[in-house]
Amino acid sequence: MICPDWVTALDESDTLAPLRAGFVLPAGCIYLNGNSLGPPPAGTGSRIAGCVMDEWGRDLVASWNRHNWIRKPDQVGALIAQLIGASPEEVVATCSVSANLLKTLSAVLSLSGARKEVLISDDEFPTDGYIADALARFGMAQVRRAPRAQLAAAATGDTAAILFSHVNYRTAEIANLRTMSDAARRAGAMTVVDLSHSTGAIPVDVNAAEVDFAVGCGYKYLNGGPGAPAFVFAASRHHHRMDHLLAGWMGHSEPFAFEAGYRPHPGARRFLSGTPPILAMVALLEGVERIAEAGVERLWQKSRALSELFLSETRTARERHGLELLSPTDPMARGSHLAFRHDRAFGISQALIAAGVMGDFRAPDCLRLGFAPAYLSYGEIWTAARRLESVLERGDYLSSGDADRGVVT
Amino acid sequence: MICPDWVTALDESDTLAPLRAGFVLPAGCIYLNGNSLGPPPAGTGSRIAGCVMDEWGRDLVASWNRHNWIRKPDQVGALIAQLIGASPEEVVATCSVSANLLKTLSAVLSLSGARKEVLISDDEFPTDGYIADALARFGMAQVRRAPRAQLAAAATGDTAAILFSHVNYRTAEIANLRTMSDAARRAGAMTVVDLSHSTGAIPVDVNAAEVDFAVGCGYKYLNGGPGAPAFVFAASRHHHRMDHLLAGWMGHSEPFAFEAGYRPHPGARRFLSGTPPILAMVALLEGVERIAEAGVERLWQKSRALSELFLSETRTARERHGLELLSPTDPMARGSHLAFRHDRAFGISQALIAAGVMGDFRAPDCLRLGFAPAYLSYGEIWTAARRLESVLERGDYLSSGDADRGVVT
Repeated sequence: MICPDWVTALDESDTLAPLRAGFVLPAGCIYLNGNSLGPPPAGTGSRIAGCVMDEWGRDLVASWNRHNWIRKPDQVGALIAQLIGASPEEVVATCSVSANLLKTLSAVLSLSGARKEVLISDDEFPTDGYIADALARFGMAQVRRAPRAQLAAAATGDTAAILFSHVNYRTAEIANLRTMSDAARRAGAMTVVDLSHSTGAIPVDVNAAEVDFAVGCGYKYLNGGPGAPAFVFAASRHHHRMDHLLAGWMGHSEPFAFEAGYRPHPGARRFLSGTPPILAMVALLEGVERIAEAGVERLWQKSRALSELFLSETRTARERHGLELLSPTDPMARGSHLAFRHDRAFGISQALIAAGVMGDFRAPDCLRLGFAPAYLSYGEIWTAARRLESVLERGDYLSSGDADRGVVT
Repeated sequence: MICPDWVTALDESDTLAPLRAGFVLPAGCIYLNGNSLGPPPAGTGSRIAGCVMDEWGRDLVASWNRHNWIRKPDQVGALIAQLIGASPEEVVATCSVSANLLKTLSAVLSLSGARKEVLISDDEFPTDGYIADALARFGMAQVRRAPRAQLAAAATGDTAAILFSHVNYRTAEIANLRTMSDAARRAGAMTVVDLSHSTGAIPVDVNAAEVDFAVGCGYKYLNGGPGAPAFVFAASRHHHRMDHLLAGWMGHSEPFAFEAGYRPHPGARRFLSGTPPILAMVALLEGVERIAEAGVERLWQKSRALSELFLSETRTARERHGLELLSPTDPMARGSHLAFRHDRAFGISQALIAAGVMGDFRAPDCLRLGFAPAYLSYGEIWTAARRLESVLERGDYLSSGDADRGVVT
C-alpha cells in the first residue's frame, strides 16, 4: 500500500523520525503494542553483553564498587525522576509494580494512624487491587472500590490512600493528579499513583500535583525489557517518617555494615529490598536514556497526532461496523493508546495481527492499539488504518475462534 | 609459583575440571568469592543477546506465548527443585530473597492462626531479620532472637515460624534441616529456610526433611548474575490453604482474564507477584543448567577437597599469625566457604586481593574465602594458600587502611 503524499510529508517533517533507527523491530510489523511491551532499543543487547563480559566477567564481585552497580537503582531512578517531575532522591528503580504497590501502600499505612482504608477505582488494573486486597486479608487495610469518576469524592475520614492509575490501562483516560491529590488532602488521605501507562508517554509532574507516592513500570513506554524493574516515587516530605513492609537489606543506610537492626536510608533508596538486578537495570537504563533524550512533551505531541490520524482515517469503517471508541475523544484527555469496544474484539485483534498490525485484546471486548511515537511513523499509522478498514469490511474477524483469549498477546 | 606434582595430579584426575571452560574469569585472578557472586557462565552473554534480538526484538509482546516467557519462572523453578529435593510445582524463580522472605513468612502467618512469633537466630543474615522486623513493626508478627545453637529448642506454643539459613553466611555452618523441622513440628510451628548459601553448593532435600517453606538466591552458587531472581519453595501440602502478602497478578490462576478478584494459582506459582524479569531469568537459567548438569553431590565433594587442601596448606601460617577458623573443622558440617577471624581481617582481605586472590571481608573481623568447585582448580587453591602465607608472613596487611570497610568487595 502506498501512502498518499500528505502522509509522507508528515514523516518527512517529523523531527522524531530519526529515533526509529534506535529500536529493533521486525520487518513488516506495525507494532501498536508498545503500551504493553516496548521493543528493544538497538543498544540494549550490546550494553548487557558489555556488562556481562567487561564488568561481571572481568571484575566479578568488585563490580559493585568499580562499576557502581550499587548505585544503579538511584542512577536509573534519577533519570525517571526527570520524566515524572520528581527530585533524584525521590525515585529508585526496584522490584515490580506489584511489589512497589505493597511498599507504597504500606508506607501510607505507616503514616496514617488509625486510618486503614485503601480507596480504589472499580476498573483499576487487577494487580493494584490484588495487592490492596492482600493487605486487607492480613488485617492491615480495608479496601473500598468506587467508580473512577467518583473516586475523588469518595474519600472519608477513614481513608488512608486513594490508589489510582494516572492513565487507565483500558481506556487511556488521564486522571487529573491535582484534583485527586486535593481531594485526598481534603479528606486527610494520601495518594498512591500508578504511573505505568504514563511514564515516558505523557508529561507527569508528581511534585506540582503534590502526589504522595507513586509506582510505575519499566517495560512499556520506557522500553526496558520484559519484566524490567519498576520504580517507586516517594515525596521527600515523607522521607523522615515513612516505613514500609518490604524493608530488606538494600534499603538500609549501610547494607554492608551487616547490622542486626534496620536503619533505613534517608531517601527513596529505602524502598530497595533485595540485591538490585543489574543486568535488568542496564537494559532499563538504555531504554530510559532513549526516552529522556527525546523528551516526553515532544513524544506526547506526536503520539496525539498519530492517534488522531488513525481515528480520522478509520472513522467511516468504525461507524459502519460498530467499533466503538472507549477512550476519550479529546486527545489531551488520554494517554498514548486507544481502546475500542466490539463484541468480536478478539477476532478483530487476531485478524489485525494476521495483517501485520500488532495490537492487543483485553477481555472481554476491548481492542487496544498503542501509538508509542518513538518508533512509529505516520505512514505506518495510515497503513494500519487501511488494514483495520479492510479487516472490518471483509468481515474475516467474524470467523476467528476464541480459543486463545486467555493468553497474552 | 609452580605447583608441586601431587597438586597437578589432583587437577589431572578431576572429572569436574572441564567445567572451568564454561565460565568467564579474568586471567590472573583466583576467585574465592563465588559464595557472594558467581562468575558468568560462558553462554550467558550470547543467550541474553539471543533473547533480546531473536525473541523480544522479533516477536515482541507475542514472545510471552511464542517463546514461553510466561512459564520461565516455572521452568527455572523446576530445575532448582531438582537441586533442593522438591517437586517441580513446589518451586518458582521470582523476585529477591528479601521479597520472598516476606511472601513465605506471611504464608506461614496465614496458616498459623493466633501464633505470631517468628523465631530467628541472632546471627542470621541481616535481611532475614529486617523482613521479620518489618512484619513486626506493622503488627503482624513478633520477632524473637535466640542463639543459633538453641534455636530448635526455643520454639513455643506462640511460635509460627522458625526462620534460619541452611548454611550460615558467616561461618558456613550447616544447620540440620531434619532436626529443625522436627523441633518446629513438635512446637506446632513451621520452618522457613534460607537456602541462599546452600543451593547449588551442597545437597539439599527439603522434602525429606519436611521443610515447610524455603527461599534462596540465584547469584551465588547458581551463577545467575548480579541480583539474579531468587526462588521460593512451598511444600505441596500447604498449597491449598496458604496465602501471602505479595499476591500480585502473575500469581493469579489466569492473569490475563483481568478479573477484579484474586484467584490464586494452585501451585507455587502463586508466589509470583509482578511480571517476571525475562532477561534476568534467561541469565539465571543458563547458570542453573550448568550446575544441574554437574550435579551437586560431585560439586560438594570437590569443594570439601579444595577447602581441606587450603586448610592443611595454611595451617602453620594461620597458627603463627592468629588467623582463627570460624567455620566447622569437619568438612561435612560446613557449606562451600571458609570463614576466619582476625582483628585485621579487612587488611588481610585487601592484601590478598592485591595478590590476585579475591575473597571478601564481613564486618567486623571476618575473612571469607569461597571454594566454588565448578571453576576452581586444586592448583589455584594451592597457590592461594601460598599467597595467604606470604601475606601473613610479610605482615603487609598491617598497613592496609580501613577506609573502604563499609563497601562491597
